[in-house]
Amino acid sequence: MKIVFFTLFPNLILPYFEDSILKKAKNKYFEIEVVNFRDFANNNHKKVDTEIVGGGAGMIIDNIALRNALIEYKQIYKNAKTIFLTPVGKKYNQKDAIRFSNEKVLFLVCGRYEGFDERLIEDFADEVISIGDFILTGGELGALVIADSVLRNIKGVLGNEESLKDESFNYNLLEAPQFSKVGEVPIILKSGNHKVIKKWKEEASILKTKFHRPDLIN
Amino acid sequence: MKIVFFTLFPNLILPYFEDSILKKAKNKYFEIEVVNFRDFANNNHKKVDTEIVGGGAGMIIDNIALRNALIEYKQIYKNAKTIFLTPVGKKYNQKDAIRFSNEKVLFLVCGRYEGFDERLIEDFADEVISIGDFILTGGELGALVIADSVLRNIKGVLGNEESLKDESFNYNLLEAPQFSKVGEVPIILKSGNHKVIKKWKEEASILKTKFHRPDLIN
Repeated sequence: MKIVFFTLFPNLILPYFEDSILKKAKNKYFEIEVVNFRDFANNNHKKVDTEIVGGGAGMIIDNIALRNALIEYKQIYKNAKTIFLTPVGKKYNQKDAIRFSNEKVLFLVCGRYEGFDERLIEDFADEVISIGDFILTGGELGALVIADSVLRNIKGVLGNEESLKDESFNYNLLEAPQFSKVGEVPIILKSGNHKVIKKWKEEASILKTKFHRPDLIN
Repeated sequence: MKIVFFTLFPNLILPYFEDSILKKAKNKYFEIEVVNFRDFANNNHKKVDTEIVGGGAGMIIDNIALRNALIEYKQIYKNAKTIFLTPVGKKYNQKDAIRFSNEKVLFLVCGRYEGFDERLIEDFADEVISIGDFILTGGELGALVIADSVLRNIKGVLGNEESLKDESFNYNLLEAPQFSKVGEVPIILKSGNHKVIKKWKEEASILKTKFHRPDLIN
């Protein structure tokens, strides 16, 4: 898989792939590319933001630089799936992460300021995604959230694929509490009786979901 | 405001504050500190992960290094609000961002591997937060999402405070589409009639919310 980020701040994206488990897997199981769409502005000042027609505070990403960048990259990657990150979009979840992990090329387009000129979305977006009901200074963290959650489903990226099996949201339940050896732990977990331990975990999982996220139970 | 991150990967956190609008505001309107809790491990190998009692794939953050780090920092910042990032938590939203922006000190604790030893959460967490129904390789992106969404509400961080007024989620509606001058735009927006423009924006906002996020309307 290849992920291409379109952003005005490459330095908010690149370092995330320079440490931890994703650094180890990069260029082996996936590739990334970061496009600063400011380079595609057609004015001398490389300005990419502009006023909003009809008024409104702040500026939006104009209809030129990002458009030029997307036209050029769509010619290189004809089957890329293009995802715009904005608070005004479908809310992202684990099913999307698994769905996107089957794509060959993902374009993740990061907004800034008050957002995108709407015609960019109309003309280029396959999907418009929000990672949650909160506002960020830009789309970069949303793009990294998508990249991270997608890439960890690519075979080879996580050392231990077993980890993918039991995790939260796979069964609409949160994972049960987990304990290490030091100090006191629920005595059942030390019993060695796998049936009893499994039942305890299921019950703890349901209790935990009811407490933190009753919406998942309903 | 001061934000202290507890992580095993400081290099996934620090660069986010070295560019863009948050770089400009750092040390002027807020401070950050990053604690690598591996430094607080009490074994020669600085190991911080351990097996899960009762079985289960993978490893969890053990009950020692992070505990030592939190004990030490709680002595320095007695009134810090401590937030653990995990998929098993209350789902984060804009109301939390505004609420947290009133704190003096935030501790953002990032998990890795299969999560935390549960007793760390029991003993130290004021709140347990998930940024959404998806799984990430670690808590760092969640912590950055919280930091970014909180800090932009601190006076001075955004140049233009007007931007905070009209944004999505303030009224449980997504923002209306926005257009720049180049190319065709809805003719009403060019009318100069502010009443008519306001009505158009409200209607577009409702339509957009119904399309992308019917759950917000109900």
